[in-house]
Amino acid sequence: MTVMDLNSDMGESFGAWGMGDDAAIFRSVSSANVACGFHAGDPSVMAQTCRDAVAAGVTVGAHVAYRDLAGFGRRFLDCSPTELADDVLYQMGALEAVARAAGTTVRYVKPHGALYNTIVHHEAHAQAVVDAVKAFGGDLPLLLLPGSVALRTAEKAGLRAVPEAFADRGYTPEATLVSRRDPGAVLHDAAQVTERMVRLAEDGTLTAVDGSTVRIHAESICVHGDTPGAAAMAAEVRAGLDRAGITVRSFA
Amino acid sequence: MTVMDLNSDMGESFGAWGMGDDAAIFRSVSSANVACGFHAGDPSVMAQTCRDAVAAGVTVGAHVAYRDLAGFGRRFLDCSPTELADDVLYQMGALEAVARAAGTTVRYVKPHGALYNTIVHHEAHAQAVVDAVKAFGGDLPLLLLPGSVALRTAEKAGLRAVPEAFADRGYTPEATLVSRRDPGAVLHDAAQVTERMVRLAEDGTLTAVDGSTVRIHAESICVHGDTPGAAAMAAEVRAGLDRAGITVRSFA
Amino acid sequence: MTVMDLNSDMGESFGAWGMGDDAAIFRSVSSANVACGFHAGDPSVMAQTCRDAVAAGVTVGAHVAYRDLAGFGRRFLDCSPTELADDVLYQMGALEAVARAAGTTVRYVKPHGALYNTIVHHEAHAQAVVDAVKAFGGDLPLLLLPGSVALRTAEKAGLRAVPEAFADRGYTPEATLVSRRDPGAVLHDAAQVTERMVRLAEDGTLTAVDGSTVRIHAESICVHGDTPGAAAMAAEVRAGLDRAGITVRSFA
Amino acid sequence: MTVMDLNSDMGESFGAWGMGDDAAIFRSVSSANVACGFHAGDPSVMAQTCRDAVAAGVTVGAHVAYRDLAGFGRRFLDCSPTELADDVLYQMGALEAVARAAGTTVRYVKPHGALYNTIVHHEAHAQAVVDAVKAFGGDLPLLLLPGSVALRTAEKAGLRAVPEAFADRGYTPEATLVSRRDPGAVLHDAAQVTERMVRLAEDGTLTAVDGSTVRIHAESICVHGDTPGAAAMAAEVRAGLDRAGITVRSFA
Repeated sequence: MTVMDLNSDMGESFGAWGMGDDAAIFRSVSSANVACGFHAGDPSVMAQTCRDAVAAGVTVGAHVAYRDLAGFGRRFLDCSPTELADDVLYQMGALEAVARAAGTTVRYVKPHGALYNTIVHHEAHAQAVVDAVKAFGGDLPLLLLPGSVALRTAEKAGLRAVPEAFADRGYTPEATLVSRRDPGAVLHDAAQVTERMVRLAEDGTLTAVDGSTVRIHAESICVHGDTPGAAAMAAEVRAGLDRAGITVRSFA
Repeated sequence: MTVMDLNSDMGESFGAWGMGDDAAIFRSVSSANVACGFHAGDPSVMAQTCRDAVAAGVTVGAHVAYRDLAGFGRRFLDCSPTELADDVLYQMGALEAVARAAGTTVRYVKPHGALYNTIVHHEAHAQAVVDAVKAFGGDLPLLLLPGSVALRTAEKAGLRAVPEAFADRGYTPEATLVSRRDPGAVLHDAAQVTERMVRLAEDGTLTAVDGSTVRIHAESICVHGDTPGAAAMAAEVRAGLDRAGITVRSFA
Repeated sequence: MTVMDLNSDMGESFGAWGMGDDAAIFRSVSSANVACGFHAGDPSVMAQTCRDAVAAGVTVGAHVAYRDLAGFGRRFLDCSPTELADDVLYQMGALEAVARAAGTTVRYVKPHGALYNTIVHHEAHAQAVVDAVKAFGGDLPLLLLPGSVALRTAEKAGLRAVPEAFADRGYTPEATLVSRRDPGAVLHDAAQVTERMVRLAEDGTLTAVDGSTVRIHAESICVHGDTPGAAAMAAEVRAGLDRAGITVRSFA
Repeated sequence: MTVMDLNSDMGESFGAWGMGDDAAIFRSVSSANVACGFHAGDPSVMAQTCRDAVAAGVTVGAHVAYRDLAGFGRRFLDCSPTELADDVLYQMGALEAVARAAGTTVRYVKPHGALYNTIVHHEAHAQAVVDAVKAFGGDLPLLLLPGSVALRTAEKAGLRAVPEAFADRGYTPEATLVSRRDPGAVLHDAAQVTERMVRLAEDGTLTAVDGSTVRIHAESICVHGDTPGAAAMAAEVRAGLDRAGITVRSFA
């Protein structure tokens, strides 16, 4: 039986401001990266998101971020590793309490935005995130970029590092993401994206931007929720996986 | 054996800003009301405070507050009960994760500042705090003002409500605090305060502002940590209780 | 020549979060209440909003608020009058610099949300807002609710207080807003709203919720920008005023 | 007549949290770098600081920073140049309104903490700060590190760039600051510091860490206010300059 996880960023509203079509996305995914208040997501949004996840049978993960509401966690913040580890632990604990009240628990951790990108290469921040996950207890798995420093750091610490692919991104022959500055970085055709993700789930390969075949080790596929057409693409990817007989299920 | 708890507000530094002499206070108290980031206390301050509490053998409580860093939680915020309950739950969870990493857990909850004062009479906010404590699980005790709506609300919900006295405050013949606008509201003489608290611990009475004897039901005594001479007064109260053979021990 | 101002809340996006259809609203109104960062509006949103106002020939006002991003300024905050006056002055200055860089200046002040509602009756907070406007210099006019304490306080201080009506709200025979808890509080039919506002501009009367005619002194009409259909209703009100030969022009 | 400016960071309290001994420092300096709310300084602190500056006859400058209260502006934040320029302009405007209400105006700009250090080399952030100062109007001078990219960028834009020296820091033979990781980085002896600053004011030279004489072009000397002994050292430097017949006066 072929199994694949679909994850998406959820609960990114804040106060009076909405973000994304969570209700639609919850029908498509198996894992919800729930914002914890540092880049998005106030406590009431978090509570509603966890209740919705429980209702939809979706696994809850902590989407931890740099402390930067004004920048939506998309800006590198040169905090000390200790500050970062403490900030991540705080966010995990806050979400855990909210998730428990909703009848579930935090089952994995995914760094958000600039933190995700930074720990692809930044050893001290990668170690800080791993330290926080260890300190939290329960040795939760981390959802990370294949080949990243963060992934190696997590594994070295005895944590499960779950590599993910991005549904709507192009890949180089070296199995890395095509830079957003280059052509082919982002794919907009839902049918093409769906076909690619079915193939990825079935045999672990994708067609790279140069037409070659590239092997990608991914146990989860990230679909976006906050761009126009995002919910529709997520739904189509999900339907395609279902049609292909692939079981969409959380890795956690 | 006579037993009394001494509690104080701790971990109220934030980032570059210090507050209080926690190191000194930790030598005197049995319970630390630890700020959770909404009125004071960033994640690194919280982590250090929890480690210090463990080292000192002091019980950790969650000092939950309105979301108001600029006002230090001292200003009433007319949030909805749902927002308040979610905010309180978030704070409790954040501190719990930090406390566990330090080798302890959150053992009680004390509302801070304007929230503490508001739920002396505000039923919806009192209920929201109680709802959050119930939602957190484990039915933690709440440290509250005797005679308050909050105390009755907690008990009605099946929670233990622990009444506290204030070491340096004057009391009316009706066993309420003398208003800060009136003479005798705040006591500055450490020896007098100590003598009063020993008597309170021993027989549950105090001399009121009019000279009469008033009965106060208190299972904990709050000593302040952020005013000049606070640490010295706390130390003297503690020494006085010790000398009188009263066991200073957390209620939790 | 009959003249009327149309005002709307603008620039209420924040970071990654959008709010309202400002581009559409700018085509309808003569005055933009620009958020100043305390309830909404970060510096870059403020800059863009001021540039858009200049391009549209719309007058810029400072939409000052309690310091409460998480609550969008919709929650009463019991700050001291001094804190409030300082917060309002800060917001006015910040917007003034941004407005000047865009080629305009702040020409009036409108309190937002809970602050607007509070100073209908709260004398100390009304005085604080007035004090801030006086301290800013230039004696800017204040856009306020007719009959409010704030309006009287502004006039007593020698400031121009501009009374406004709400396009989509029902009025009682006493010329006050129908409570949102009662039927007839909010009007949804754009044609009806337009007809009412034309009549208001022309002869200063409205049909109250009980069918009687009520006199409303308003020099500005507030149209909303952040609800579904808001931009369309604003456009229809504007077109109706234009058709009726009423000059839509800022009061400032 | 020899003239020198003494500047110090002021108004860095926030809400309930105090920082530095501003009252003492105001007796020693001629220029106050006033925090504008992004790294420290709430509107009430800013107002008090401006009033104190007026009372002391001290010139007010805007101490602009990255948006990072939790990190006190000491952490690099990778915001876009546009975001940074807008943030700086916002801070300048906020302080200007507060300063005017206190009877003065903002007369110069000094970047704070991580922003100050970043624009020693970061061209885009340096340009953003300069752009904000230009957009503010009045072409205010900028207080900067000699030899920095920021200084050159300011001068290229037609702004006056005022180079400063640090009273308590050691210098290399190349006229740069000794790294804080190396011996001799920080000087603690007030008499020695005073003697160095008198010599700097008189002939523009200092003894470098290797004993050689180094030429430093400085029109202002920065003294710290937030470390133990800071106020005393500032007072001693001031007294030394006075004794030497050097006029301590703002450059602005």
